[in-house]
Amino acid sequence: MSKQFVKKITSMEEDFAQWYTDVVTKAKLIDYSSVRGSMIIRPYGYEIWENIKSELDTKIKETGHENVYMPLFIPESLLQKEKDHIEGFAPEVAWVTHGGQEELQERLCVRPTSEVIFAEHYKNIIHSYRDLPKLYNQWSNVVRWEKTTRPFLRTLEFLWQEGHTCHETETEAINEAEKMLTIYSSICTELLAIPVIKGEKTEKEKFAGAKITYTVESLMHDGKALQTATSHFLGDGFAKAFGIEFLDRNGKQQSVHQTSWGFTTRVIGAMIMVHGDNRGLVIPPKVAPTQVVIIPIAQHKEGVLDQAYSLEKRLSKQVRINIDASDKQPGWKFNEYEMQGVPIRLEIGPKDIAADQVVLVRRDTGEKLTISLNDVESKTLEILSTIQDNLYMKASKRMAEKTTSVTNMQGFQEALQIESRLVKAMWCGNTSCEDLIKEKTGATSRCIPYEQESISDKCVYCGRKADKMVYWAKAY
Amino acid sequence: MSKQFVKKITSMEEDFAQWYTDVVTKAKLIDYSSVRGSMIIRPYGYEIWENIKSELDTKIKETGHENVYMPLFIPESLLQKEKDHIEGFAPEVAWVTHGGQEELQERLCVRPTSEVIFAEHYKNIIHSYRDLPKLYNQWSNVVRWEKTTRPFLRTLEFLWQEGHTCHETETEAINEAEKMLTIYSSICTELLAIPVIKGEKTEKEKFAGAKITYTVESLMHDGKALQTATSHFLGDGFAKAFGIEFLDRNGKQQSVHQTSWGFTTRVIGAMIMVHGDNRGLVIPPKVAPTQVVIIPIAQHKEGVLDQAYSLEKRLSKQVRINIDASDKQPGWKFNEYEMQGVPIRLEIGPKDIAADQVVLVRRDTGEKLTISLNDVESKTLEILSTIQDNLYMKASKRMAEKTTSVTNMQGFQEALQIESRLVKAMWCGNTSCEDLIKEKTGATSRCIPYEQESISDKCVYCGRKADKMVYWAKAY
Ligand SMILES: [Zn+2]
Ligand SMILES: [Zn+2]
Repeated sequence: MSKQFVKKITSMEEDFAQWYTDVVTKAKLIDYSSVRGSMIIRPYGYEIWENIKSELDTKIKETGHENVYMPLFIPESLLQKEKDHIEGFAPEVAWVTHGGQEELQERLCVRPTSEVIFAEHYKNIIHSYRDLPKLYNQWSNVVRWEKTTRPFLRTLEFLWQEGHTCHETETEAINEAEKMLTIYSSICTELLAIPVIKGEKTEKEKFAGAKITYTVESLMHDGKALQTATSHFLGDGFAKAFGIEFLDRNGKQQSVHQTSWGFTTRVIGAMIMVHGDNRGLVIPPKVAPTQVVIIPIAQHKEGVLDQAYSLEKRLSKQVRINIDASDKQPGWKFNEYEMQGVPIRLEIGPKDIAADQVVLVRRDTGEKLTISLNDVESKTLEILSTIQDNLYMKASKRMAEKTTSVTNMQGFQEALQIESRLVKAMWCGNTSCEDLIKEKTGATSRCIPYEQESISDKCVYCGRKADKMVYWAKAY
Repeated sequence: MSKQFVKKITSMEEDFAQWYTDVVTKAKLIDYSSVRGSMIIRPYGYEIWENIKSELDTKIKETGHENVYMPLFIPESLLQKEKDHIEGFAPEVAWVTHGGQEELQERLCVRPTSEVIFAEHYKNIIHSYRDLPKLYNQWSNVVRWEKTTRPFLRTLEFLWQEGHTCHETETEAINEAEKMLTIYSSICTELLAIPVIKGEKTEKEKFAGAKITYTVESLMHDGKALQTATSHFLGDGFAKAFGIEFLDRNGKQQSVHQTSWGFTTRVIGAMIMVHGDNRGLVIPPKVAPTQVVIIPIAQHKEGVLDQAYSLEKRLSKQVRINIDASDKQPGWKFNEYEMQGVPIRLEIGPKDIAADQVVLVRRDTGEKLTISLNDVESKTLEILSTIQDNLYMKASKRMAEKTTSVTNMQGFQEALQIESRLVKAMWCGNTSCEDLIKEKTGATSRCIPYEQESISDKCVYCGRKADKMVYWAKAY
């Protein structure tokens, strides 16, 4: 029975995309609906999002930001005010044309992001340097009319947080954008155990309307990269288009300098593809809805369930814990909670009770430990922390193994021949080289990392002088 | 300066609607945008919503419900599956007809509520009585294409929580709907200090698709009623339309019995109109973003600011506190924080410091107290609690004063002649009498309260036998 069950998940090596679909549906993270490209986030998936959200919201507030809520709809004329922005987003917005029975005089788009509606509000409320900085954030849903969609990774609608700030000076705005990138990076590494590369996007890959786009990039199990979060220095483009001006400290009218930054449900897709394995999900303890599951063994025997429930009660003060006392076989339960990625399984049966012990099984390594009942709280907490660290280390090691430095296009193409990888190569800064690299290899520039390395002094494509080391990869 | 400032708010007696608009905008709860009928919820307004949400979310989870997230869009064909539901909602939905450049084959409506999309999902995941009950909730935005809108009270888009549950039996579903009404009622009374009447809606006033609609109704300062929250027993109408069936304990296929229930940002409008006064907002301490504001007096004098900040530090462990050390006049600050409805103001100046005291001013009564600095924590907490209770008592007293029992239509009309009021009257149960009462008086039936009273045995309109006492009022 146990083997049969596990077989239901396609193996990663056989078909990574199918493995992903199997995991998100069978672990009950999502369900499909009759709305193309949209997903239903089920309780188990939503609780992961709530855990991420709660931590990120705290960090956002601690750094002085305030939450607000802006309208879902944006009039077409408002969206058109900033040229680069509308060019970037027009192809992928959903349009409301009718309200009730009436046809609207002006179409409304369903927000793909809220720069313009924040800009309109900022124009109303900012008048003097005393009104600055304005540090706003909102938790909301946004819609982008994607052709090809996959749960969490790319959906018609997704949930996110979008920060929008206004500052007196360019420097202050750049610092803000960088600060938020650091927060995103810490959410990835510390909470989700996902190693990331921090850097800047190239001109070609940056956000529509931004002067600089900062990004955190991560590497999936299959060697493809995923942009986990971005933070933008917008300059004064929106400010000029919308007239967001203030009287500065010298009594002069000036435009504000802005940032925007977003973190989305997409990161759950990254978490799955970084840590998951052929038995299913592996959820980092810090965001796991259930950190520990208790499986009673021979639960019909006297005392077993009593002991199991008393164990649950003891541990519930310190960890998110569940007990499965259903009439299903222990073997079925083992597989089920492994598939759900619960970090720790505790088994307790008559023999354990007699020996004043409990069996602890780690999801990340499969390791079995026998623990004295006296130490169960401290040991459980210790091992949850070990698992969290181990997941990060494993992922870092894999990222290092799947990274190759190349100095010419032959090397570049060879690096990607057998499997997807992260490629480090020098770049001259010309978009044409970037375009041609993509054409030849399928890899896009992921970022110009903060941590630079001089691999050579020539562009990997054109051979001209290059002083930027860039990460390249096929990407989600 | 002080008087001038207060004058900016229109008095309630002069023009209640204008008073409301003045308060929501000048206290910076909301701003308007170029999106008709939508509002921007500013930080001060959003924090009130966060405080309400946090408390309600806890209660929803404590009673065994799980949070999920459903798609924003609903295909037209799905919305049409339940006849009463579509009839009720079709006139007020926004339609998406284009995605990017392409015209959609089927229109999508922006959810006005999510019964049908939950129903579709429930059909997928419910098979046996072992899958029941399903107790789901979501926090989301919804859109209703209202013609006339007012901030919080009636907006094109609003924020809410919508619960959707499935049960084995009708009784269980009815109990669930009633349980959630009790939770809504406790949020109103205990958190928002708003007295409510619990009861059922009449056939005419119930939710499109429901068998029974339970409601909590409250009375505003101007004598108009406001439906604060509703909870619906849906019966098996959606279950039959969508085929949500399960194998029951006797091995028979059966339809599930459902509920839905919602609590919205509208309640902030109720809070404003129940507690506010001619000086502005009055926010109940339990949901106030700032519970205490410190105003330093003669703050340029040595030691004043030090003492004020040390007072803030002491109190910040127990209350949500702010200090205004800006260079504005104390008089201006007094007015400003009164307008913002901050429950307690603490004044500290050289004289107070010399006497080891602080002056405490209550927002609800204007009362000034001198408190020894030693007792400041305990006294502040005590008075916050007193204010919370007093607001509830004041509102209850007003509601009692503005309620009239009538036994005939002459009495009914007289009761509403001078000002809006809550009217208690017997009703025979016929919709025609309800319609005619509305036509004659402008009042609609608010609810058939749980707490019945026998005012007479005849219908106030037709004189036929009546055993239901109903609350009537003009309403928001
Ligand atoms: Zn080049
Ligand atoms: Zn009658």
